[in-house]
Amino acid sequence: MIVVMDLRADEKQITNVTKSLEELGFKTHLIKGVERIVIGAIGDRKQILSSGIEVMPGVEKIVPIMKPFKLVSREVKTDNTIIRVKDFSIGGEELGIIAGPCAVESWEQLMETASLVKAAGATAIRGGTYKPRTSPYSFQGLEDEGLKLLAKAGNETGLATITEVIDEKSLDVAVEYVDIIQIGARNMQNFQLLRAVGRIEKPVLLKRGLSATIEEWLMAAEYIMSEGNYNVILCERGIRTFETYTRNTLDISAVPLIKQLSHLPVMVDPSHATGEWKLVAPLSRAAVAAGADGLLVEVHPDPVKALCDGPQSLTPDNFAELMKELIQLSELMGRKVN
Amino acid sequence: MIVVMDLRADEKQITNVTKSLEELGFKTHLIKGVERIVIGAIGDRKQILSSGIEVMPGVEKIVPIMKPFKLVSREVKTDNTIIRVKDFSIGGEELGIIAGPCAVESWEQLMETASLVKAAGATAIRGGTYKPRTSPYSFQGLEDEGLKLLAKAGNETGLATITEVIDEKSLDVAVEYVDIIQIGARNMQNFQLLRAVGRIEKPVLLKRGLSATIEEWLMAAEYIMSEGNYNVILCERGIRTFETYTRNTLDISAVPLIKQLSHLPVMVDPSHATGEWKLVAPLSRAAVAAGADGLLVEVHPDPVKALCDGPQSLTPDNFAELMKELIQLSELMGRKVN
Amino acid sequence: MIVVMDLRADEKQITNVTKSLEELGFKTHLIKGVERIVIGAIGDRKQILSSGIEVMPGVEKIVPIMKPFKLVSREVKTDNTIIRVKDFSIGGEELGIIAGPCAVESWEQLMETASLVKAAGATAIRGGTYKPRTSPYSFQGLEDEGLKLLAKAGNETGLATITEVIDEKSLDVAVEYVDIIQIGARNMQNFQLLRAVGRIEKPVLLKRGLSATIEEWLMAAEYIMSEGNYNVILCERGIRTFETYTRNTLDISAVPLIKQLSHLPVMVDPSHATGEWKLVAPLSRAAVAAGADGLLVEVHPDPVKALCDGPQSLTPDNFAELMKELIQLSELMGRKVN
Amino acid sequence: MIVVMDLRADEKQITNVTKSLEELGFKTHLIKGVERIVIGAIGDRKQILSSGIEVMPGVEKIVPIMKPFKLVSREVKTDNTIIRVKDFSIGGEELGIIAGPCAVESWEQLMETASLVKAAGATAIRGGTYKPRTSPYSFQGLEDEGLKLLAKAGNETGLATITEVIDEKSLDVAVEYVDIIQIGARNMQNFQLLRAVGRIEKPVLLKRGLSATIEEWLMAAEYIMSEGNYNVILCERGIRTFETYTRNTLDISAVPLIKQLSHLPVMVDPSHATGEWKLVAPLSRAAVAAGADGLLVEVHPDPVKALCDGPQSLTPDNFAELMKELIQLSELMGRKVN
Repeated sequence: MIVVMDLRADEKQITNVTKSLEELGFKTHLIKGVERIVIGAIGDRKQILSSGIEVMPGVEKIVPIMKPFKLVSREVKTDNTIIRVKDFSIGGEELGIIAGPCAVESWEQLMETASLVKAAGATAIRGGTYKPRTSPYSFQGLEDEGLKLLAKAGNETGLATITEVIDEKSLDVAVEYVDIIQIGARNMQNFQLLRAVGRIEKPVLLKRGLSATIEEWLMAAEYIMSEGNYNVILCERGIRTFETYTRNTLDISAVPLIKQLSHLPVMVDPSHATGEWKLVAPLSRAAVAAGADGLLVEVHPDPVKALCDGPQSLTPDNFAELMKELIQLSELMGRKVN
Repeated sequence: MIVVMDLRADEKQITNVTKSLEELGFKTHLIKGVERIVIGAIGDRKQILSSGIEVMPGVEKIVPIMKPFKLVSREVKTDNTIIRVKDFSIGGEELGIIAGPCAVESWEQLMETASLVKAAGATAIRGGTYKPRTSPYSFQGLEDEGLKLLAKAGNETGLATITEVIDEKSLDVAVEYVDIIQIGARNMQNFQLLRAVGRIEKPVLLKRGLSATIEEWLMAAEYIMSEGNYNVILCERGIRTFETYTRNTLDISAVPLIKQLSHLPVMVDPSHATGEWKLVAPLSRAAVAAGADGLLVEVHPDPVKALCDGPQSLTPDNFAELMKELIQLSELMGRKVN
Repeated sequence: MIVVMDLRADEKQITNVTKSLEELGFKTHLIKGVERIVIGAIGDRKQILSSGIEVMPGVEKIVPIMKPFKLVSREVKTDNTIIRVKDFSIGGEELGIIAGPCAVESWEQLMETASLVKAAGATAIRGGTYKPRTSPYSFQGLEDEGLKLLAKAGNETGLATITEVIDEKSLDVAVEYVDIIQIGARNMQNFQLLRAVGRIEKPVLLKRGLSATIEEWLMAAEYIMSEGNYNVILCERGIRTFETYTRNTLDISAVPLIKQLSHLPVMVDPSHATGEWKLVAPLSRAAVAAGADGLLVEVHPDPVKALCDGPQSLTPDNFAELMKELIQLSELMGRKVN
Repeated sequence: MIVVMDLRADEKQITNVTKSLEELGFKTHLIKGVERIVIGAIGDRKQILSSGIEVMPGVEKIVPIMKPFKLVSREVKTDNTIIRVKDFSIGGEELGIIAGPCAVESWEQLMETASLVKAAGATAIRGGTYKPRTSPYSFQGLEDEGLKLLAKAGNETGLATITEVIDEKSLDVAVEYVDIIQIGARNMQNFQLLRAVGRIEKPVLLKRGLSATIEEWLMAAEYIMSEGNYNVILCERGIRTFETYTRNTLDISAVPLIKQLSHLPVMVDPSHATGEWKLVAPLSRAAVAAGADGLLVEVHPDPVKALCDGPQSLTPDNFAELMKELIQLSELMGRKVN
């Protein structure tokens, strides 16, 4: 940790800051620069962040040196984390391909989608059952009924299942029915929910918040891991920017960056990232080429009639075509599709 | 609702879209432009948004005309909503000044702050008891113990009290102890929690999410009101932008804009907006000059020793000085401080 | 163009707006919705935008229907524009790979890079000669001397050459020496410079501005084309967002989106997009997989000693390795590297 | 400057970096932290930034300590810079109020506006003559003819005059006619133009770029000052964010922040910041309350007929009313309107 003193800081201010740092348990190093004094403080980052050193007279700013995350960090664990779900795994050689509708609408809609994406090579079926919707007047999901359908579709097809939970209550139910629990972008900093999924054993897919920095995202994963659940899958789904042609901006750089910073697997959701089905195939290819460990793709048997997110859903035919492209591309990347 | 057809849309596509719109209960108007066809669809916005008209062949895009919010809208209620809490009110002539520490740390710290801000003219005391922190390793608040201290401080000083809740469990406890329930920026789209505070009777202060548009923020208020609680206070606290000199960017335009769009009161939190106490006074003045109905200001008796947010906290002396400025300024604005 | 009237607009206001629209040459259609009146106006977008219809009493907002760009639009020209430079072409089957140092520093540095990138399969050599630098105290480029070196390197290797111009004066010189003229991100809305490169015949590579929307970027290309130069190559190089781990955020979605909206070729600059050489290879692959027509990559024989942008430059070895990957990937995409 | 070494950096890498730093003229300090080594490097920031230390093996990142700007910095000059133009001054007690139309359209339009804003208390008249427009098909200004009208209006009313220049050619003409030269947001990093206005003697109003950080903005001012022109006025005009209800987001915090960092005067342009005239008055008040040294406000005698920016222009009546409010408010702030 570096404490940068103000240009006009006097001797007494410098002594006071040094003394306070030492009282907090830091060892200090004084560096006299050409124009200003800088104090190197060696010790535990947590201490200094929760202190008010920054507001002491004569202090200009504090520059943290150590990254705030630990358990998620590749510095702590150098080999990739591989997460196994049913027959498939994420984070290793195999790509995880999760596909399915925005929302579970009916048994027919779900099973039709599940069979078709299974045939095309998907490894898991997704389907919203508790939907966090921007408007209180929009369709909010089939809830528990939807979970049962999802579990049944998983059993009949052999696909792993995933659904989003929105609070501890929905988590308690969902954990009984599905194989992977999803934390949506809007709940990425719902710390109570993060702790709760940290206490289960099933894998958790953690979407990046709309305006979350990569550091905040990794800290959210740290919350889950700090409670004991190490099966965390990260999922980039687009961040909020000024561009309005797309619903969000897919931060493709996050994929190789996460691979540098963390040992956790990272997937990409090209459907939510853009909101437009025509962009899903090129962005899926880009994600795999950038090194993503898998994809989360919205597929609906009849997007025109979808109860949500129709515009960003692929038809099963479009999805099957995309899968063909991905099989070749993943080979090139030394990976393989199921 | 306007459906813009593609330049190359053919007769059949146009007929199909028109037919689908009519099946959904819309009346349609065909407008033949110089270059393309546009279909005006009259009916319920909810219908078309949850449909997949946008993915029908020949459709370029859909342009919604009506705003999605209703209960929060000034079109529905033209006079300002005034919310009464204990002796004071927000949204009317009086400015609501909420001050206090980031977190309740001890009875001494809290009472010292409460007495001093009361003396300076504040109308309510704030203090975090359940803290949503970016790191699982940071101080997380005194929880229930803190709530009791807050309630006691309210009783002894006559100040109204406010604290943030982070889930239904903390809400259930807090609602017994404090006068105003705060929903923090990170929970602005925690829709389950919004519904839950929609079912209580006490006023709710709803902070804007870090990357929430004004429309999404108003829709979050709509969630609360749609459950029956009409006592919603909006609070602008800075949005996330590329600028790094300040922690967030205070969107001061949101104040007069909310006044145009909604009848709800709107406050400003200059402390979180910038993260630097030196900017709190000028931004507080700016907020009042722009028409804000009140302020939420962090004050700590000893910012250097604060367990959180020291750098953005005013000392009681700084706060007292600010209040003097605001008394004159509010008069100029036809308002008054307690 | 759609004029949305206010909920409370009265008959007279509606008549006035309709009359004004008709005086401006528009045909009007009145659509009476459930809650409000909407006026469809058919005519020339330019007219209404430069008028003040939006401020007339009773008008809530104006919604443009037509896109503002024409010459760049795929609606006007459906087949891809292919631009030929020396032996290679951009926008067709071949990928254009432009590589080279941030700045031309010396003949040795330039020729060493040029020979190595040529050997690895690049089609053009880049090198800054007039550098737009954030600080007036940074190295500003070799200027005319650099241009001569660049031209000579092009002649000796057979590579096409490209350099950035920063005003009409540097353009006048550069156009004599290099094959492609680059307009940098900071000059994307330097409209005088856009007009000037619109009057030359050589191809222009137009980088996207740091905070330019895709529409503004295409309008900048429209400026160039409106002066008669149809040889415009677009280049996505990252946009400014809140994320600080990378220098900018590569907007990969822009690639397939531009392909939908325009017939112009689009390249990607992964070096400036991230500022970190370790991310250049994965992002280069992602760009090609997303359908980009080429890449602009910084390569320096000794990044540690580079006079600018060392941290984002590949070594010639890293570049050669990347090219091997791209040869296979481009084949998969039905493209080919030189 | 702090060089943070990688967790796994070995002795040899540390020695190499230290040696390289010393060769570049830095004195080095080794700080051995709990987990990693940090090297404090004392010397000239320019050196290290233009070197490639950051890419040396074992280096994780470089943290600059010193701010990059010098001449603009309050550390260099502690008292406020006051700039005098005709009878008025900016940066001192007096507020500078610049008002007028987006574009000079005719003598009648200009003189009508000038007389009315003069009567209301403005100190200068603005009017675009060379207009940088997003579309090549929009009205581009009266150019030299407009300049003459502007000069004449200045003479007849006694108001100071200001217009935007877009390249060196327009600067050469404008400098003969007007009192203050404006650099628009889109040219904030047109470094050649910055240098050119650095060589004149007249005051320069430098608008903040749409996505410029405060540091980049101050560096642009540094460009002008480094050429010898110390009469720089900064003008905040809104930055680009995700919010779409307003055209831009006024960064009101920039006002007190600039006052801390720099001795230069800072104004606010509430018209471009929001794009909506109804927000201009509240934001003007906010700007003055936050400590701005003046305002730049668009006023048009007939906004409905304006050739550009009608929706954000005040009528002369609205402007006169705003001025009345500002007279009282500025008194409260210890300032005065002309």
